[in-house]
Amino acid sequence: MQKYAEQTQQEFEGWEEFFNKAVDEKLENFKRSDRIYDVIYAQQFDRNFLDHLCNLADMIRLLAKTKVGQSQLRHLLPHKRAMLYFVQPSTRTFLSFQNACHILGLTISEIRGTSTSSEVKGESPEDTIRTFASYVDLIISRHPEAGFAEKTAWVLNQTDHPVPVLNGGSGPDQHPTQALLDIYTLEREFRTIGGLDGKRIAMVGDLRRGRTVRSLSYLMKNYRDVELIYVAPEVFRMKDDIKEFLSKHDIPFHETEDFESILPQVDAIYMTRIQNEYAEGPSSAAETYPEFHLKMKHLSMIQTHCAILHPLPRRYEIEVGIDKDPRAAYWRQERCGMWIRAALIAYIFRVEKVIFEEFS
Amino acid sequence: MQKYAEQTQQEFEGWEEFFNKAVDEKLENFKRSDRIYDVIYAQQFDRNFLDHLCNLADMIRLLAKTKVGQSQLRHLLPHKRAMLYFVQPSTRTFLSFQNACHILGLTISEIRGTSTSSEVKGESPEDTIRTFASYVDLIISRHPEAGFAEKTAWVLNQTDHPVPVLNGGSGPDQHPTQALLDIYTLEREFRTIGGLDGKRIAMVGDLRRGRTVRSLSYLMKNYRDVELIYVAPEVFRMKDDIKEFLSKHDIPFHETEDFESILPQVDAIYMTRIQNEYAEGPSSAAETYPEFHLKMKHLSMIQTHCAILHPLPRRYEIEVGIDKDPRAAYWRQERCGMWIRAALIAYIFRVEKVIFEEFS
Amino acid sequence: MQKYAEQTQQEFEGWEEFFNKAVDEKLENFKRSDRIYDVIYAQQFDRNFLDHLCNLADMIRLLAKTKVGQSQLRHLLPHKRAMLYFVQPSTRTFLSFQNACHILGLTISEIRGTSTSSEVKGESPEDTIRTFASYVDLIISRHPEAGFAEKTAWVLNQTDHPVPVLNGGSGPDQHPTQALLDIYTLEREFRTIGGLDGKRIAMVGDLRRGRTVRSLSYLMKNYRDVELIYVAPEVFRMKDDIKEFLSKHDIPFHETEDFESILPQVDAIYMTRIQNEYAEGPSSAAETYPEFHLKMKHLSMIQTHCAILHPLPRRYEIEVGIDKDPRAAYWRQERCGMWIRAALIAYIFRVEKVIFEEFS
Repeated sequence: MQKYAEQTQQEFEGWEEFFNKAVDEKLENFKRSDRIYDVIYAQQFDRNFLDHLCNLADMIRLLAKTKVGQSQLRHLLPHKRAMLYFVQPSTRTFLSFQNACHILGLTISEIRGTSTSSEVKGESPEDTIRTFASYVDLIISRHPEAGFAEKTAWVLNQTDHPVPVLNGGSGPDQHPTQALLDIYTLEREFRTIGGLDGKRIAMVGDLRRGRTVRSLSYLMKNYRDVELIYVAPEVFRMKDDIKEFLSKHDIPFHETEDFESILPQVDAIYMTRIQNEYAEGPSSAAETYPEFHLKMKHLSMIQTHCAILHPLPRRYEIEVGIDKDPRAAYWRQERCGMWIRAALIAYIFRVEKVIFEEFS
Repeated sequence: MQKYAEQTQQEFEGWEEFFNKAVDEKLENFKRSDRIYDVIYAQQFDRNFLDHLCNLADMIRLLAKTKVGQSQLRHLLPHKRAMLYFVQPSTRTFLSFQNACHILGLTISEIRGTSTSSEVKGESPEDTIRTFASYVDLIISRHPEAGFAEKTAWVLNQTDHPVPVLNGGSGPDQHPTQALLDIYTLEREFRTIGGLDGKRIAMVGDLRRGRTVRSLSYLMKNYRDVELIYVAPEVFRMKDDIKEFLSKHDIPFHETEDFESILPQVDAIYMTRIQNEYAEGPSSAAETYPEFHLKMKHLSMIQTHCAILHPLPRRYEIEVGIDKDPRAAYWRQERCGMWIRAALIAYIFRVEKVIFEEFS
Repeated sequence: MQKYAEQTQQEFEGWEEFFNKAVDEKLENFKRSDRIYDVIYAQQFDRNFLDHLCNLADMIRLLAKTKVGQSQLRHLLPHKRAMLYFVQPSTRTFLSFQNACHILGLTISEIRGTSTSSEVKGESPEDTIRTFASYVDLIISRHPEAGFAEKTAWVLNQTDHPVPVLNGGSGPDQHPTQALLDIYTLEREFRTIGGLDGKRIAMVGDLRRGRTVRSLSYLMKNYRDVELIYVAPEVFRMKDDIKEFLSKHDIPFHETEDFESILPQVDAIYMTRIQNEYAEGPSSAAETYPEFHLKMKHLSMIQTHCAILHPLPRRYEIEVGIDKDPRAAYWRQERCGMWIRAALIAYIFRVEKVIFEEFS
């Protein structure tokens, strides 16, 4: 495949240069008329955008409670066709995006895995993506390779037939719609107590590799007086890049290995899974770190308004009995993922006004 | 996984107790406001329900004959989203449920097999199901494990966000919508001669393991003066539990190995496949029992009104030439599966009145 | 399986006889009321049909440019249900058919690969197809076996519940909708210069096994004064049957191995891939024949109106930099596939009049 590789490099020689830029310098590339066009990194979201999208998700959720409202929603985008290109397995992200599309009336093509694709015939990933863009109006992708969604959007933006790309997770780093749903969930859980501003949040588990806690930490710069507590075993401590980011933006944080000690102090606990997929050795895979699990006995130690989040799927990190406690927000969080993704798609196709007008 | 298993057991300790109850004692658990909410066992159906559903299926089928009627049907449930969770391969059950949904306008998410699922990340089946319930309004499942649908519905009914569960087959025992379609087919085939009451029905083939003939036998208690003839080789005779049930409900039956002798006497012949999937040894898998096959030469021996049924897929049990005989009802039976499942979904979402009103 | 095979043969003994007829003698079998009912071979298309379909595709494409038009389109066939039965992997054909269905409002069932099918339970392919026909109104199939779609349509036409069959590619020979989209693309690219009549077209690459160039060559008999130039290495020369066909229909053609020499003379260049799937030895698979690739340096040698086509996926045959040249028509060609397939489905269900009336 030497020859082919050379050809591709020639065409996309601009890519390497683009890819190596700082994220801040790249944001403009994924905008049109001063609005987000492709959703690639969590860094694209500012406070205005986040507030706007949370409001929009609330409106959609409210409309969806009545048959008339549901009908209005699904008449918003029945003329749009989406592609769900999920090379990496994912139940939640896939189903929530798919049902978000259904809510707004979009029709869907799905490719899960690569076995049905033309890649078996030696097609380049760029050509495959251009093919999708030939048939649909929106590409939602999930891929194990870092930068996949970014490259996809970048390539399409050079053609005369681009379509928006939504990153449903690419590699170990970026999963921007997960960050959106986490923000939306926290804002909702804190609705009656002033929202996310001024809250103290514990993030627990594999902070070193968990992309959800990394993205969420970044987004904290958009909120006032938030304080973070990182609770992780030594080997899974949050990486320095995030801690430097927080320091630069004057976001207070501290780190501890003593899970129980922080329980009474926090407004939210964001639990995460030890992610074996990215494990580097069998030893860490076998270890479940029970001292970083949330157990029934902890329920009496946390505040009455404390929200318990988890990106799911869980394994041992949260005892199943906790599900029935009203502070267990993770199942609501899951549904928030569907609503905020519906809001995002409505934003991308600029039908928010129609939705807001229903409430004016 | 020891630890996880313990946790699950703790949460769901009520499950074992529930599971071990007699079916009759469990029925109430799957009802709401005196109507069936989850469809788990054939034992949930009484004569009123069966008659109601057969009528409803007739109405839907009639509406679907015109473009106006089709439009009315698909505007019944476009605001509902269904999940088809088919862990076990199945062409007919899958496609008929899917197209039943399409007829009524529901949108669909599908998971076929488990490879795309979060189970690979160590999620419990209960959490996977709760996830589905987060995004959709109806779960239709097929699973190789006995009791899977039952447990699914039972678990969801303990949460604050349950959705109805339809059992599309779980393990070797329960396949209630197959029983519905068999009843519907028999009622239709006997339409001009008084319906299923008073008919003599032969069931042929692997009666020991075939779940269709077992469920259908149970449902015979809802019909007057039905007589059953079990035709099977010694190793595949109907099990005692069913025979005891029939005796208890005064349903006459007898058993024979002489297929040809019963042909002239019966109103319907229900053929079944020797099911290798559940075969315990290679010997029975290789044997096709040709003396229990329906052949062209038999067509002259059966009554002019006799209906030939088969749950399909078939292998050797019915000679292909028989397909063109008007008494061959199995292809009509297949379509009955789509109509009765559409009727069931319409019932579950309580839109039957709208359908019946079209004809008042 | 001896026994089963015998049975099938008995039922379908007419098949062998039918299959061995000349194509011209079979065409009537796939018509109803003097219109094409099943789309099996490119030989079914005459000039009237091709012109009609190209016009129809233009109308659909035009309607799809506005929201009102899109709404009119998807209200044409929402009462129809299609089955995409794709046993062989295919990105483009699958997605373009699927989105063509979406554009016209059809709902879709998909089977990709055979693992979910009842074939694992020993069902015959004929029974599987009849099952599809029980639930849907249209079957679109792709299969590695030559004659599969033909047999499918033939079998269904003997039952009392046939549905139209569209051949999305069966075996190495027939792929009629690819031929349609190639014609449609050429007609569009030559729109301002009198259409396809009178043009000189080079076909390049694996002409021996490429079914697209074979079908396209056949269809040239419908156009006036077309001249073909076959450009291929010795081992991949066009087969004699096509050349005899051209001679018989007085269509001038010649063959060459000198790609560069023909570049200045032609109105269109149809590039094709060396298809390893059908390769008979490892030697030909490794060879990429670079002297039959279109390169950047060739752009200055071809005419300003010359259209570059490729059925895609490509590997090395067209340098990626060429994509940005306005004469590169292959990405437009891909979209033409969606529009012409939408036109075909509209034709099959006889809703063309409604579409044409929009423009009267």
